[in-house]
Amino acid sequence: MRGLDPKAPMTEFDIIAEIFAPLATAPGAFGLTDDAAVLPARPGMDWIVTTDQIAEGTDFFAHDPAGSVGQKALRVNLSDLAAKGAAAQFYLLNLALPVGMTREWLTAFAAGLARDQQNYGISLLGGDTSRGEGPVSIAITAFGLVPEGKMLKRAGAKPGQGVYVTGTIGDSGGGLAIFRREKHTLNEAARESLTQSYRLPRPPASFGPKLIGLASASVDVSDGLIADLAHLAKASGVKLVIDAAAIPRSPALRAFWGDSEAAIIRAATAGDDYQIAFTADPAVEEAIAKLDANTVITRIGTVTTGEGVALMHQGKAANVPAPGYRHF
Amino acid sequence: MRGLDPKAPMTEFDIIAEIFAPLATAPGAFGLTDDAAVLPARPGMDWIVTTDQIAEGTDFFAHDPAGSVGQKALRVNLSDLAAKGAAAQFYLLNLALPVGMTREWLTAFAAGLARDQQNYGISLLGGDTSRGEGPVSIAITAFGLVPEGKMLKRAGAKPGQGVYVTGTIGDSGGGLAIFRREKHTLNEAARESLTQSYRLPRPPASFGPKLIGLASASVDVSDGLIADLAHLAKASGVKLVIDAAAIPRSPALRAFWGDSEAAIIRAATAGDDYQIAFTADPAVEEAIAKLDANTVITRIGTVTTGEGVALMHQGKAANVPAPGYRHF
Repeated sequence: MRGLDPKAPMTEFDIIAEIFAPLATAPGAFGLTDDAAVLPARPGMDWIVTTDQIAEGTDFFAHDPAGSVGQKALRVNLSDLAAKGAAAQFYLLNLALPVGMTREWLTAFAAGLARDQQNYGISLLGGDTSRGEGPVSIAITAFGLVPEGKMLKRAGAKPGQGVYVTGTIGDSGGGLAIFRREKHTLNEAARESLTQSYRLPRPPASFGPKLIGLASASVDVSDGLIADLAHLAKASGVKLVIDAAAIPRSPALRAFWGDSEAAIIRAATAGDDYQIAFTADPAVEEAIAKLDANTVITRIGTVTTGEGVALMHQGKAANVPAPGYRHF
Repeated sequence: MRGLDPKAPMTEFDIIAEIFAPLATAPGAFGLTDDAAVLPARPGMDWIVTTDQIAEGTDFFAHDPAGSVGQKALRVNLSDLAAKGAAAQFYLLNLALPVGMTREWLTAFAAGLARDQQNYGISLLGGDTSRGEGPVSIAITAFGLVPEGKMLKRAGAKPGQGVYVTGTIGDSGGGLAIFRREKHTLNEAARESLTQSYRLPRPPASFGPKLIGLASASVDVSDGLIADLAHLAKASGVKLVIDAAAIPRSPALRAFWGDSEAAIIRAATAGDDYQIAFTADPAVEEAIAKLDANTVITRIGTVTTGEGVALMHQGKAANVPAPGYRHF
C-alpha cells in the first residue's frame, strides 16, 4: 500500500489516474484510459491546433506557485488560438518531470489547470507524463474551432488598413525585470500588477473568435510586439508603420520604465504579452471597438506598401534592435 | 552573416525555416509561418489524436543516429493511431534541445522524419522548438482519421472472443538488452534484427485501419504485452486467458533468451513493441488473417468473464511480476 504523504513521489499511473483523469471530462478523452482521444467531427468547422512549451528558468521559476505554472502553460496556447479566431475546446498535456516530484506539487499544478478549465470552458483531452533528466518541462497542445476556412492568418493585411492591439504591452517584461531584481520604486499594487502579468497572462480568449470576418490578419503577441508585427508584415507582404506613442502601456509599466523612446522600445520588444495584434479596414473600427466590453483595443498604426515594421517616434523612425535570437 | 558550418549552433528561427519548414507540406501547416495550424474538416470523419514523448537515456541513446531518433519519436505515435484504427495524416513536433545542437544533428534528425513522411504518407503540421536544460527531449502529437464514432477502443472485448497480436513480441527488449551489454552468442544478422527493433520499431500503420468493423477492442503494445492486455481487460470488464507458448517470438529472440517460461514472460513484459493487441469474434478470424499480406496475426488467447490477465503455461497459470511502475 502506498501512502498519501503529500511529499511522497508518485508513479506515472498514479499521476494519471489521481491527478489528471478528473480534468478529462470530455467523452472523447475516455478518462485518459485509452491510447488516443477523439476530436469529434463538427460539421462546417475546422479544428485549429497549436502547441507551445514552457520551461523552468525561462518562462517560470522553480519558486512560482505550481498552480500558476499550469495556468501559464495553458494560457500561452489559448493566446495562439485567440489570435487565430478559434474558440478553445480541448488541450493535451506533455509533462516531463524530474525525479521526486511530490503529490503536493502535482495536486497544486492540476488545481491551476482546473481553475482555467472553468475560466475558459475547456477540458483535458490527453497527454503523456515522463521522467526527464532536467527541470520541469511542460508542453501543451490546444484545440479550438473556427468556421471552415475562416482561420485568421498572419497573411491578409492590405495597405490602407489600421493596425490594432488588444490590452497593454510590456507588462510581462516589467514583471520579469522585477523578478530579476531590477531596481524600482513602485508601490505594491503596481509591482503586483506587473509580476502577475508575467506569471499569469490574460489572453483575450473570448474576444479572438469575434474578430472573424472583421480582422484581415492577426498574430499572437508573444515574441515581442515589434517581432510579431514583423511576422505579420512578412506573411502579408506589406509594411506596418507604427506610432510608438500609441502603443498602449499600463500606468504601472510607465511608472517603472518611464516614457522615453527607449522605454517604449523595451516594452515593444519584451515579449510574453499574450495579446492579439491585428489589422482591419478602418470602416469596421467602430464595430470592433464594441465587440467586447472587457477588451480594450488600441489603434497603433497603418498598413502601407513595402516591407517590415517602421516604429515612428516624434516624427522619426526609431532604431529598433533586432529581436533577441536565441542560439541553441 | 551566419555560416553554414555543420557544427555551428542555429537560432530557433533558422531551425524552423531551414530544417523543419520543408517537412510542412500540407496547406493547413502554412509552411510553419503562422501561430497555429488547421486540421481541416473531413465530413463523416473524426480526428484521432495521440501524444508520446521520448527521452534520451530511456527511449534512445545519445550515440543513436539522429535520423532514427526522429523516426522512433514518430513511430511510437503512429503505433497508437494504428491501434485505434486511425489512418495517420499529420503530426506536431515539440523539441527541447540542449545548448549547442549542431546543424549536422538537426539535419539528420529531419532527414529521418522526411523518410518516415514518405513511408507513412504523413506530414508535419506544426510544433515548437525550445532550449532545455536537460538532454534532447522530443514529444510528438499525431493525428489520424477514422469514420465518425468508429475509433477502436480498449473497451469492447466480449467473452468468447479471441485475443490476437500483430508481429512478434520482445524483440525491442532484446535489442535494448544488447545495447546494455547483456552477454549473447548471436550472429550479426540476429543481433542487428533485435537492435533495429529497439531503434526503429515498425508499427502496423496500414493494417490498423483495416481492423475497424472487425476488432472489438484494441490496444497499442508499448508498456509490455501483459500490461497492455491488462489495460484492455480492465477497460472491457473481462478476463484475458493467454497461452504463453502462443506468444509470437522471433527466431533471433528465441536464440538470445531461449524458450523457458521466464524467457516468454520477459518478452511479454519488456515493452516497446509497438504492435497491436486486439480482440475479435472467432467468426472473423479468417477475414482478419487475409487483411494484410505484410502483417502476421497470431491468436494468443481467449476472452472470458472475470478480470485481469492469466498467462497459462504448460497447463498452469504463470506468475507474472507486476509491471515495473516508474517512480517520479
